[in-house]
Amino acid sequence: MGAKLTPREKDYSKWYNEIVVNADLAENSAVRGCMIIKPYGYAIWEKMQAELDKMFKATGHENAYFPLFVPKSLFEAEEKNAEGFAKECAVVTHYRLQNDEDNPGKLKVDPKAKLEEELVVRPTSEAVIWNTYKSWIQSYRDLPILINQWANVVRWEMRTRLFLRTAEFLWQEGHTAHATKVEAVEETKLMNQVYADFVENYMAIPVIQGTKTASERFAGAEETYCIEALMQDGKALQAGTSHFLGQNFAKAFDVKYATAEGGLEHVWATSWGVSTRLIGALIMTHSDDNGLVLPPNLAPIQVVFVPIYKGEEQQAKIAEVVEGMKVELEQKGVRVKFDNRDKFKPGFKFNEHELKGVPLRVAIGPKDLENGTVEVARRDTLNKTVVAQAELVDFISDQLDKIQVDLFQKALDFRQKHITEVADFDEFKTIIEGKGGFVSAHGDGTAETEKAIKKITKATIRCIPLEAKEEAGQCVYSGNPSKQRVLFAKAY
Amino acid sequence: MGAKLTPREKDYSKWYNEIVVNADLAENSAVRGCMIIKPYGYAIWEKMQAELDKMFKATGHENAYFPLFVPKSLFEAEEKNAEGFAKECAVVTHYRLQNDEDNPGKLKVDPKAKLEEELVVRPTSEAVIWNTYKSWIQSYRDLPILINQWANVVRWEMRTRLFLRTAEFLWQEGHTAHATKVEAVEETKLMNQVYADFVENYMAIPVIQGTKTASERFAGAEETYCIEALMQDGKALQAGTSHFLGQNFAKAFDVKYATAEGGLEHVWATSWGVSTRLIGALIMTHSDDNGLVLPPNLAPIQVVFVPIYKGEEQQAKIAEVVEGMKVELEQKGVRVKFDNRDKFKPGFKFNEHELKGVPLRVAIGPKDLENGTVEVARRDTLNKTVVAQAELVDFISDQLDKIQVDLFQKALDFRQKHITEVADFDEFKTIIEGKGGFVSAHGDGTAETEKAIKKITKATIRCIPLEAKEEAGQCVYSGNPSKQRVLFAKAY
Repeated sequence: MGAKLTPREKDYSKWYNEIVVNADLAENSAVRGCMIIKPYGYAIWEKMQAELDKMFKATGHENAYFPLFVPKSLFEAEEKNAEGFAKECAVVTHYRLQNDEDNPGKLKVDPKAKLEEELVVRPTSEAVIWNTYKSWIQSYRDLPILINQWANVVRWEMRTRLFLRTAEFLWQEGHTAHATKVEAVEETKLMNQVYADFVENYMAIPVIQGTKTASERFAGAEETYCIEALMQDGKALQAGTSHFLGQNFAKAFDVKYATAEGGLEHVWATSWGVSTRLIGALIMTHSDDNGLVLPPNLAPIQVVFVPIYKGEEQQAKIAEVVEGMKVELEQKGVRVKFDNRDKFKPGFKFNEHELKGVPLRVAIGPKDLENGTVEVARRDTLNKTVVAQAELVDFISDQLDKIQVDLFQKALDFRQKHITEVADFDEFKTIIEGKGGFVSAHGDGTAETEKAIKKITKATIRCIPLEAKEEAGQCVYSGNPSKQRVLFAKAY
Repeated sequence: MGAKLTPREKDYSKWYNEIVVNADLAENSAVRGCMIIKPYGYAIWEKMQAELDKMFKATGHENAYFPLFVPKSLFEAEEKNAEGFAKECAVVTHYRLQNDEDNPGKLKVDPKAKLEEELVVRPTSEAVIWNTYKSWIQSYRDLPILINQWANVVRWEMRTRLFLRTAEFLWQEGHTAHATKVEAVEETKLMNQVYADFVENYMAIPVIQGTKTASERFAGAEETYCIEALMQDGKALQAGTSHFLGQNFAKAFDVKYATAEGGLEHVWATSWGVSTRLIGALIMTHSDDNGLVLPPNLAPIQVVFVPIYKGEEQQAKIAEVVEGMKVELEQKGVRVKFDNRDKFKPGFKFNEHELKGVPLRVAIGPKDLENGTVEVARRDTLNKTVVAQAELVDFISDQLDKIQVDLFQKALDFRQKHITEVADFDEFKTIIEGKGGFVSAHGDGTAETEKAIKKITKATIRCIPLEAKEEAGQCVYSGNPSKQRVLFAKAY
């Protein structure tokens, strides 16, 4: 493991990068802005995928797969969407390389293999999917279509950070088609709720559900619902979005359906997505200066056994006891690792598993063999407890549940302390610059005010909370009347 | 459902395309050569992925994710590999579109956003992965590395067919690094065996394991192991390959490790993959003129209940009985659908489920209610049996097992009848042109002979079977001496 992490207090951003790399989650690649997700990081993503996939299927969705490439003419069909992504997209222009005569052993683009029409590497798949739905939808009987896709997408971001913002990332994108506006809006809200449930119950990250202002909306959406989380440095992170697309894509791709009454109407659409960015949120919500802290529900390894021994005889005896307990735990569905590597000392292993955020560590040495005990250490609190071997299985089950709950509660307490109601713009600036977190303030709802506030403070409106109560007030910036508070914050 | 399928006898290729489209498996997209995998087709792929993933993990592999793009300079590092894929790769040259002043509302490539170095969309990931392994591997302690990736890849094929050959396809690619040649060869064979087990036990397709000749080898491999299957039209299909890459990539990317003895050696490599092409093999092995036939182990729906009723009262009674049996079956792990759609008649439903290859159909009507029976129809044999409701769960369990076994046996019988030993080239040509299938013949092992035979007959050496026995003979083409027979066939 070697060097300790930079403490959060000293340099939060550096701390984050060090955790990602030292906990073996991901690293930068030779391709600008693209990351390599290492096995340990990918195992967390697999757990997230598995749970989300179950939730999507339980709400009636099916998976499918659409092409990676979007022909330029389809890409530009929905103008706002195209405008939103045109400035940052990878474009395929040729389909062949040839030998470079001037540089033996090297290749160059074959100018004769130029595509008639350029292909955009999908930054999102509305265009290619709605062009397909056109042929799938004739009548109201064909609706709704409830499809999800697990895929990679590419957005040519100029400033990238592992997991949080990368040129290529992995995500899921739901794309649904409905007969009525009401149904499409219900779907949009439902999937935002599914995201909130997943992020709170599995990732142990409290979120605020809300809608975006026009300037923060998805390009091509009529309304964007979102879940917003708060990181330990007081910056917000948009953890998932669900878009009501109105009839924009149906109109751009001419997708109409025959109604039961014999009419012909444009179809209503939604799309919704979460990505590997969530792993960034997971890291920044729970981890500490010792490394990663993982909620048990997503930890690839929930319990690690570390034996402490001198000589082969002790080693064998301990192994026998551990293997027995391991089997029992696995029968209960607990993900267990027995770290019996002989070439590393216990202290080294302790550090490694701490850095990698394994929720519970069970140490067992010769004294424990005599006493029929083990020592259990919690990663989140670092507390240690001596437990009788006979009681270990129940103890671990309880502790895993408890850690999951405690992590959520801790993050919730932090967030509650970091929602600050402000009355004027001086207070607004003081909070944003100092304490950070969400600032709950009245705004006048105009794009100009939002832009001006962003320019001065770098804070944006993260969302108009769904649960915001009506409350007459004055915009902190313009002094114009306002009906409710919205949440501002600096954001990832 | 509408029109019947073109019979296999009349036009095998058309029959195949019709099944793919009419059984809702996949369709062509607006992007040349790229397919849309529809929910039903994708559900089969998900089942395949789940089983393969278990098998990979059971043999010690972990999943990870590497970038979609390969910088040209990395792509060209391993010369043979580059040569093999350069002629059919999608190349990203720009990272931005801009408004086209000459065509309002249209976009064009921004010439100022030209990449300094072109990016190849991965046709396979050896280059990007071995460039990464370079920093992961220092010592023998870092070995072996056993990684798999589930991903999309792009090969700019000129003639494409749904599932069988598409410009973009989904696959898994294993990439392992080893300290010794022996270990890498063992890994190569092990994964070929894993593929054989999967294809035979889950897909019910018998395969022949063998090695490729130099001209059919993966670009950059020292040895390619493969599993070869036989389709109903007598053409072979390469269902999976596992490559021993020697030290080629380690040398191209300078990946060395410190040995336990203090030396410094290049690392040994393997790679192995199967793709959505397997779905093409699945279709062509088992299906018939009525549509798709799916082996129960991979069928998204294993049993479908179709109620036959007049009026709501009958409908309600039947539904009650069906729901009871459905719960019982699901508790046993059977994937069941109750097709209670009111807007379609039973005959329509029968056709649809037949076309989609659901292994067992259970019909239940008013007479069955009186008698306590149901009628079970097997998709593969089309046989119908009246079964007591009380015995249905056991009957279905048995039948699903039996169908799985019978499909494999039927395909095996067909293949055994289509391996023909020939003594001379006239016989060779007669068999290849007429009966088809594998021709077992002596070859002299030279590329010239292979090329000449291919030119005349379109047949290639599919593999040198692992189980081929030594047998002195003369090459069917050149008359030169040969030590064993190899398998020739026309192939997909």
